[in-house]
Amino acid sequence: MFCICLCVCVCYLLLSLNPFCVFFQMYGRYTQELGVYAKEEAARLREEGVRRPSVAERSRSLELLENDKGRCAKCRICTVRCQKFLISCVGEDWIFLILLGLFMALLSWLVDFGIGICLQSQKWMYVNLEGNVFLQYLAWVTYPVVLITFSAGFTQILAPQAVGSGIPEIKTILRGVVLKECLTFKTFVAKVIGLTSALGSGMPLGKESPFVHIASLGASLLCKFMSLFGGIYENESRNMELLSVACAVGVSCVFAAPIGGLLFSIEAMSTFFTVRNYWRGFFAATVTAFMYRVLAVWNRDEVTITALLPTNFRQDFPFDLQELPAFAVLGIVSGFGGALFVCLNRQIVQLIRNQKTIKKFLMKKRLLYPALVTLLVSTLTFPPGFGQFMAAKLTQMESLETLLDNHTWSKQGIPEEFDSNSHSQAWKHPQVNVFVTLTLFVVMKFWMSALAMTMPVPCGAFMPVFVIGAALGRLVGESMATWFPDGVHSDGTIYPIEPGVYAAVGAAALSGAVTHTVSTAVVVFELTGQISHILPVMIAVILANAVAQSLQPSLYDSLIMIKKLPYLPELGWGHHEKYNICVEDIMIRDVMYITLNCCYRDLHDVLLAGHLKTLALLESSESMILLGSIERAQLQALLSLQLGRPRRLKYLRDRATAESRLSISTEETSLSSTPTPSMKPLKPALKRPSVVDHPTEIPMPTSKKWEENQLDEQVNFDNCMIDPAPIQLVERTSLHKTHTIFSLLGLDHAYVTSIGRLIGVVSLKELQKAIEGSVAVKGVNVRPPLASFRDSGTSGTIMNNENKARDLHKLWNRRKSMSLPQEHRASDPDEKSKALSSYSSPNLPLHPFLLYPSSRLAFGPYTYSALMEEEWTHHRLDPALH
Amino acid sequence: MFCICLCVCVCYLLLSLNPFCVFFQMYGRYTQELGVYAKEEAARLREEGVRRPSVAERSRSLELLENDKGRCAKCRICTVRCQKFLISCVGEDWIFLILLGLFMALLSWLVDFGIGICLQSQKWMYVNLEGNVFLQYLAWVTYPVVLITFSAGFTQILAPQAVGSGIPEIKTILRGVVLKECLTFKTFVAKVIGLTSALGSGMPLGKESPFVHIASLGASLLCKFMSLFGGIYENESRNMELLSVACAVGVSCVFAAPIGGLLFSIEAMSTFFTVRNYWRGFFAATVTAFMYRVLAVWNRDEVTITALLPTNFRQDFPFDLQELPAFAVLGIVSGFGGALFVCLNRQIVQLIRNQKTIKKFLMKKRLLYPALVTLLVSTLTFPPGFGQFMAAKLTQMESLETLLDNHTWSKQGIPEEFDSNSHSQAWKHPQVNVFVTLTLFVVMKFWMSALAMTMPVPCGAFMPVFVIGAALGRLVGESMATWFPDGVHSDGTIYPIEPGVYAAVGAAALSGAVTHTVSTAVVVFELTGQISHILPVMIAVILANAVAQSLQPSLYDSLIMIKKLPYLPELGWGHHEKYNICVEDIMIRDVMYITLNCCYRDLHDVLLAGHLKTLALLESSESMILLGSIERAQLQALLSLQLGRPRRLKYLRDRATAESRLSISTEETSLSSTPTPSMKPLKPALKRPSVVDHPTEIPMPTSKKWEENQLDEQVNFDNCMIDPAPIQLVERTSLHKTHTIFSLLGLDHAYVTSIGRLIGVVSLKELQKAIEGSVAVKGVNVRPPLASFRDSGTSGTIMNNENKARDLHKLWNRRKSMSLPQEHRASDPDEKSKALSSYSSPNLPLHPFLLYPSSRLAFGPYTYSALMEEEWTHHRLDPALH
Repeated sequence: MFCICLCVCVCYLLLSLNPFCVFFQMYGRYTQELGVYAKEEAARLREEGVRRPSVAERSRSLELLENDKGRCAKCRICTVRCQKFLISCVGEDWIFLILLGLFMALLSWLVDFGIGICLQSQKWMYVNLEGNVFLQYLAWVTYPVVLITFSAGFTQILAPQAVGSGIPEIKTILRGVVLKECLTFKTFVAKVIGLTSALGSGMPLGKESPFVHIASLGASLLCKFMSLFGGIYENESRNMELLSVACAVGVSCVFAAPIGGLLFSIEAMSTFFTVRNYWRGFFAATVTAFMYRVLAVWNRDEVTITALLPTNFRQDFPFDLQELPAFAVLGIVSGFGGALFVCLNRQIVQLIRNQKTIKKFLMKKRLLYPALVTLLVSTLTFPPGFGQFMAAKLTQMESLETLLDNHTWSKQGIPEEFDSNSHSQAWKHPQVNVFVTLTLFVVMKFWMSALAMTMPVPCGAFMPVFVIGAALGRLVGESMATWFPDGVHSDGTIYPIEPGVYAAVGAAALSGAVTHTVSTAVVVFELTGQISHILPVMIAVILANAVAQSLQPSLYDSLIMIKKLPYLPELGWGHHEKYNICVEDIMIRDVMYITLNCCYRDLHDVLLAGHLKTLALLESSESMILLGSIERAQLQALLSLQLGRPRRLKYLRDRATAESRLSISTEETSLSSTPTPSMKPLKPALKRPSVVDHPTEIPMPTSKKWEENQLDEQVNFDNCMIDPAPIQLVERTSLHKTHTIFSLLGLDHAYVTSIGRLIGVVSLKELQKAIEGSVAVKGVNVRPPLASFRDSGTSGTIMNNENKARDLHKLWNRRKSMSLPQEHRASDPDEKSKALSSYSSPNLPLHPFLLYPSSRLAFGPYTYSALMEEEWTHHRLDPALH
Repeated sequence: MFCICLCVCVCYLLLSLNPFCVFFQMYGRYTQELGVYAKEEAARLREEGVRRPSVAERSRSLELLENDKGRCAKCRICTVRCQKFLISCVGEDWIFLILLGLFMALLSWLVDFGIGICLQSQKWMYVNLEGNVFLQYLAWVTYPVVLITFSAGFTQILAPQAVGSGIPEIKTILRGVVLKECLTFKTFVAKVIGLTSALGSGMPLGKESPFVHIASLGASLLCKFMSLFGGIYENESRNMELLSVACAVGVSCVFAAPIGGLLFSIEAMSTFFTVRNYWRGFFAATVTAFMYRVLAVWNRDEVTITALLPTNFRQDFPFDLQELPAFAVLGIVSGFGGALFVCLNRQIVQLIRNQKTIKKFLMKKRLLYPALVTLLVSTLTFPPGFGQFMAAKLTQMESLETLLDNHTWSKQGIPEEFDSNSHSQAWKHPQVNVFVTLTLFVVMKFWMSALAMTMPVPCGAFMPVFVIGAALGRLVGESMATWFPDGVHSDGTIYPIEPGVYAAVGAAALSGAVTHTVSTAVVVFELTGQISHILPVMIAVILANAVAQSLQPSLYDSLIMIKKLPYLPELGWGHHEKYNICVEDIMIRDVMYITLNCCYRDLHDVLLAGHLKTLALLESSESMILLGSIERAQLQALLSLQLGRPRRLKYLRDRATAESRLSISTEETSLSSTPTPSMKPLKPALKRPSVVDHPTEIPMPTSKKWEENQLDEQVNFDNCMIDPAPIQLVERTSLHKTHTIFSLLGLDHAYVTSIGRLIGVVSLKELQKAIEGSVAVKGVNVRPPLASFRDSGTSGTIMNNENKARDLHKLWNRRKSMSLPQEHRASDPDEKSKALSSYSSPNLPLHPFLLYPSSRLAFGPYTYSALMEEEWTHHRLDPALH
């Protein structure tokens, strides 16, 4: 009975979805003027009235239904109500979040499944060819090479944006920059399939960062899909918020770590975090983690929902206070290791880029590089060969599992008997002891991971780094266990050292150091299902971060720099300078602008002179009063409207009419065959921004003079969209505040004004320079949280800290020298009156030219998105400005 | 030897700190002009040169030392270097954070110690009087009454700001409002001592929220102390950042939960979170949690660092999937419970406030109310009386410990034999079973906690709510254990239900519901040291939040409303309206302003008319072009400068001189005995803002006409500080965006402009109305995260959801009716040209009146702090405006 009811419900729902679409469309149209909408709607309804029963009729049928007796009728009424409720829910965020969570969990599980099959078949081949080492080697090597080459080729062909980690791109998008092609369905497919085959090859690559990208792609596509139902999904700032939730989902569905995933995504991706978004992230991450683990239960992999890699550390006495120095040392070593990893990765990329012969060769044969790298790595990990010394038989997850084992592998240097757990056996070698195996593993995997990261396939570095960190921790732990076989506790009770705890600490510390996050600690807790060793983990993670952050940018920032994405460096803390540098020290004083009373010729010249995306609109060049900013496209539209085909034709027709009074010309008839001018002159013009560059496309030598006259006319800004309140700073806004405003609002540039007068402009580039100037380390800028660590503890270490002569002093000198001649700061009355006379009362005819047809511009002063719609490679202010 | 060296070091450090202060002072002065500073410094050094050996001499003595032979000399050189390094570190943030962490941990431990002594002595008295029930009752009741009365009296006398939770105040401060007296040393002392005695009484009060306040106080005081050494501590925005770190420290040092503490403080306190601050919070919270637990180890309370309330739940099979519905039900019940708690607490306060007789009586005898409440509560919890049915013998921590016990208390309804753990015995009663005890506990503690929260003592509600939640969870858990004695797992293996897990889930859910946070889940993990039951906890917390948030504001928001602190409600999510309401729908169109060419009379009138803290400065009343905003104090200073004593005297003297040429008057001699006019006319005037209201304080009938003349003069804004770029919105800025900007920048009001013309103003009040209008529940506004829950699931529940006729529709109608007459939106050319003529070209003489003597104003367009320096009670825009 219930089943039948359900069926009826669903059928009815599907059948009657159509009229409800009307409702949703109305919902979605609030951004338009209601008047316009009402007319359209009326027209549409008139049309529909012919084809379909009206809504009124439908409601009548509903009433009839209610009068009808019988179970089925009641069911149907109930159904209609249910359906109403369900559809009213679709617009809600939580439906979106649940769908996203479920979908990503399923996808993550499927990708895992695919990877598992790939890895198993490699192992199967390897085992079945036992006896013939050469064939074994061939199988071991060919398999990953084929998979990686396929992955590289597939992504290259389908969507090159899918290559690499994905977190740098998402970070840039969340920063407010629109990266075209980064959130398309093609990229989604390329990333998922590319990632599966890349990870299936067994290379030391990670799944986490690509999944952040995949989740963002999923959210973006789901948004587009859901916007078919409800209008709210069209809002741009909301989409941005959902994107940041998607990042949390991405991390969460890889590690089944909802809290850690959310925190990691906040730390790695955002500069400012909206707390009201926290709730959504938490919710979606929980749904996805739950679903991901439930799938494992349903697949009979697990009995119930547990952590992904449950450990079994001692709870009553998790660690001794005297072990803390060892954890601290592990943290510091991890910090150096993390910085080294980031540096190594960048150096490899730069080496390939700078070596012209290598570059040329690789540009031709794009698939050769990944194939060669894979060949090298898989040769070195061939189990009967060198691989036997580094447990190369194990997959990443298996290695991690064994490393987190709570049994000691070695006591007093003599390897213990391993238990029946077959995986742990891989670490045991008849000739060499566990320490050598672990050291080799750490060293080899370290450079292999850094190298593998440079392959043009979808891949992340988190997981390999995590495993390396665990091995490093295990090494320290085993050493401690050898050193103190009975534990370090002083009074009677023996609490032996647990090397597994060290492995967990090392994993958190190294991955934290590489990504410059502290939330890896939480990821470790959720991954292992144990939180009792919280303090050692946190101490190690903090120390690792302190060291790594003072030496190198994070891996993601490094990748952003390598990919040359638009970028705003972080401000360090504890730096006094940034409170003392002001905008006037860094701004560009020679700003390009147009004035309210300019003629079309000026517009033409300005548009030719530079490629700025927005131009300042001033009242006049004498008063310099900033009225707003106009997009380049708008100006191009104005110009093409003035010089474009319709006006040209009109002029010709007028002239012809005038001439025809004197003599009948044949010119007119030939021209009248061209299409009649459109009734909406603005919109087609907007779609042809290139019309400016060849305004004389119709050969019309007689109209040369007309054109000149047209260019000398004053510009009419009436129909032009003007951003009336672009972000303004004053000269004394500090660098610290400027940075905050830029990163809060995702700005590209800001005007500097002094009581309405435009005196300069600051773009991302200047800001970047100023920040990097104040804390400069060779090659890359750094983000020094415990900067004194760099000055004292870590000087003369791995990194080559050639401090540039600090630009700061230059800035200081410049500022001092400039403070007097500036007229607006004149302090004695004589100077002031002089200055006053120079701004002699200008006229300010204010036109009511403000029409907001676009809902995007209607957002008010912060129309940054409008400034950045072009492709990111051109996003920065043009060099012509600087 | 080492000790001696150390001593020498410390002594030397102390002795030679003085010259280094010079260095730090210089560091701190960068905000001043360097020129001015150099002069001052030179003068100071000249003075000092007489009194002390110069720095040059000192460095010479250092060189001598280096030449000196022997161990001690080397030591000293080393010392000097160490000392240099140490002092260079003091300016660093991490030193501050470590100090703060250590200090707060120590304080938290001391408070715990004090509370412990108080509670033990009550128990001691109670036990020693065994036999005489009446004396026992007297002791049991008198003791807490005395303590609470002392606490209430002490805080009342020393610092009434210390009363209550503290989180509402800190939230308001972090919102950008300056609450005077809230961060003083007096408040600190009152809060610490008041809290200790209040909690020592054994009332159901919490330590967490007051500790957030105490930590903020500590950070603020430490900032002041540290600013003696380094200049960076003077920066205001930095202090705000450190304050938000302090909140994390406050939570962390109560529960020894660094991650949960940080997350809770972010969720409960901030609207936007700076991710660069995350690091500091993490660091400080870890230090404080570590120190707090280490103190326990040093005090021999613990063997090593473990969780505060370690539990011992089953790890390999933490819960069954089929138990999840029970957890979900627990979450939903907790959600309703949380909302009820907040409502109950507010109703009690409002009952007392509205009942005039009660209010009058209590206002006279302020200490009577807490005494009466304490008497009632302690009478009901008297162990031989009603207390025996609700385990009243146990303290809060003991109750919590027993509730989290992993043994089942009852099987098949028959109470099991408790183990030797004496605390658990308290739940066992010979007549009634565990279910009754638990139910009574939950019900009684529920209203007692809500009532106790209203006492005027420093107290929080987190801990009592946490305990009630645990009891509720235990109740559900015990029921489940009775219902499924062999667990719910279907295949062979028996995994019995663990009621302790339910207790943990319930605690997280109820406290999450009351505070509207999800981080209570993390607090529970860190408190119990187990994370294996993460999914049930998170599901319950999310459901509890969904229910509670759709019914009531959070406890802290409710307290903010009760205390009438300035407040910006949260925007819910999934609400389409907020994207469609624009600023023009809610703004005040009748703005008070002054113009550039106004006379002093206008200034006088405007100042008398309202109490606005800042006034808009327009170019002229015809053009309405916004030039900036001026603080009220500045205008008062201008007015008093014009009409004040010095000018008056000068006029009189001038007139007298003129008259004396005709006849010698005696008037002059009598007047010249008044003090001579000050040489700095602006500053003393600034200190007398009230001078405006009685400008004729010197009886001078002859100067009446002079005054009139003075008032008719045009205002000279030259020496006036003007904020040249107040925040501006445009008419079509959406409510969503406005809310974001207001909460991001901590605004109090923003001007609405249309290409430079001022057309309205929006203050917090309008915004508040607009948000509350769009989602209105009787009495208080709500923050609906899963709003559809309210519309469907929870209608007709405990709360009285009388939805007001939504103001939204009004807004809509208003907007529609207004869209046509508004000239700036005129869409056909005729209307436009008409509108154009109405703004006929005004003159715009721009004065260079911009001087930035204050470093605060020099921050740029976001000078919100300047707008809010007056006491918070007057912070909102005056009703006269509206």
